[in-house]
Amino acid sequence: MAEHTVKAFDEDITHLRGLIAEMGGLAEVSIHEAIESMVRGDGELGKQVVLRDKKIDALETEVDRLAVRVIALRAPMADDLREVIAALKIAGVVERIGDYAKNIAKRVDRIENRSRFEPLTLIPAMAEVAAEMVHDVLTAYAARDPELALEVIKTDEKVDAFYDSIFRNLVSHMVENPATISSAAQLLFVARNIERIGDHATNVAEMVHFAATGLYPPDEDH
Amino acid sequence: MAEHTVKAFDEDITHLRGLIAEMGGLAEVSIHEAIESMVRGDGELGKQVVLRDKKIDALETEVDRLAVRVIALRAPMADDLREVIAALKIAGVVERIGDYAKNIAKRVDRIENRSRFEPLTLIPAMAEVAAEMVHDVLTAYAARDPELALEVIKTDEKVDAFYDSIFRNLVSHMVENPATISSAAQLLFVARNIERIGDHATNVAEMVHFAATGLYPPDEDH
Repeated sequence: MAEHTVKAFDEDITHLRGLIAEMGGLAEVSIHEAIESMVRGDGELGKQVVLRDKKIDALETEVDRLAVRVIALRAPMADDLREVIAALKIAGVVERIGDYAKNIAKRVDRIENRSRFEPLTLIPAMAEVAAEMVHDVLTAYAARDPELALEVIKTDEKVDAFYDSIFRNLVSHMVENPATISSAAQLLFVARNIERIGDHATNVAEMVHFAATGLYPPDEDH
Repeated sequence: MAEHTVKAFDEDITHLRGLIAEMGGLAEVSIHEAIESMVRGDGELGKQVVLRDKKIDALETEVDRLAVRVIALRAPMADDLREVIAALKIAGVVERIGDYAKNIAKRVDRIENRSRFEPLTLIPAMAEVAAEMVHDVLTAYAARDPELALEVIKTDEKVDAFYDSIFRNLVSHMVENPATISSAAQLLFVARNIERIGDHATNVAEMVHFAATGLYPPDEDH
């Protein structure tokens, strides 16, 4: 590329990365607020999460459009092209993380007698770890840091362990309190949504690791 | 583009579309077999679904690589570039549909006393509709048929209605049969996975509709 094209390309990439950082920041806030609304039974806060998801979706559309424009105008080659494609893919995954937070927030009003659920203390702890994974993987993306990406991949084991524990806990709770089964089933989905957030953060971490090193991290089966 | 480049580009696009059709065909088979293994408690069949998912993942990687190569070598503009980007996105969604089938297949061994579950008759009916959506949306993609895409979007309502009915059915089942709660919880996830397959087929249908008409279909909130 000519020098001015290189500069314009770098600016575009910086813009793309900025949009993704913005998406990630919003997704992180949504995870925290979805869980807070769930724990407190705060339907208004849940609605804010649902609304914020539209903003995340709009940012993904912006990433898509910018990526197409960058490819069309700058005709990047090799590594530069892969960087643009990676941005497209990562934006798609972050959008899905936002969706999971939205799905949690939408269940707020379907849970009754929330004070009686022990998992309502485990779920926030689990969500804390998942939100941290999202935070760290975006830091790893911004810094092109494969080590931090590997840490994120490793952390997913914690999220999975939480999930197994919450699943067992909720099933026991259902057995002992048949009247609460419907609410407990909702909480199962909440835990599952958080587990998927962890999987998607891992997914991004694998892309970041690959982009930085050219190597796929050791195989994990999702 | 020069004439020979146009021809080469058309061949590449045909190849991309062929790979996506192949992915879709495999995903469809996986949905059917995942449900069959679930209903019959056939762990061996379930394992085949899990293995097939690796093939689907490999095809997605092939789509990604070919798309990057096409962009780099042919430098497509405007509509052609959007076609390549759409192929990338659609391959990503079909890969996720395969994942949901795999998730169902992995639960086969976690369900006990399957003959006692009425939802085990509703779930195959639901999966039938979802698999048909996947089939139809890939036909719509291959034929660039926005009308068929709209039909797929419309059909998602049926899948959602099945889901609500199965959810209620399973919760009642749990209340009446506390000993089966753990298996019933697995079936809740199966139903949820099928519901997500319907959502993703809808998602592809929206892309097909947009690619064919330049218009987003009426807003559906996923």
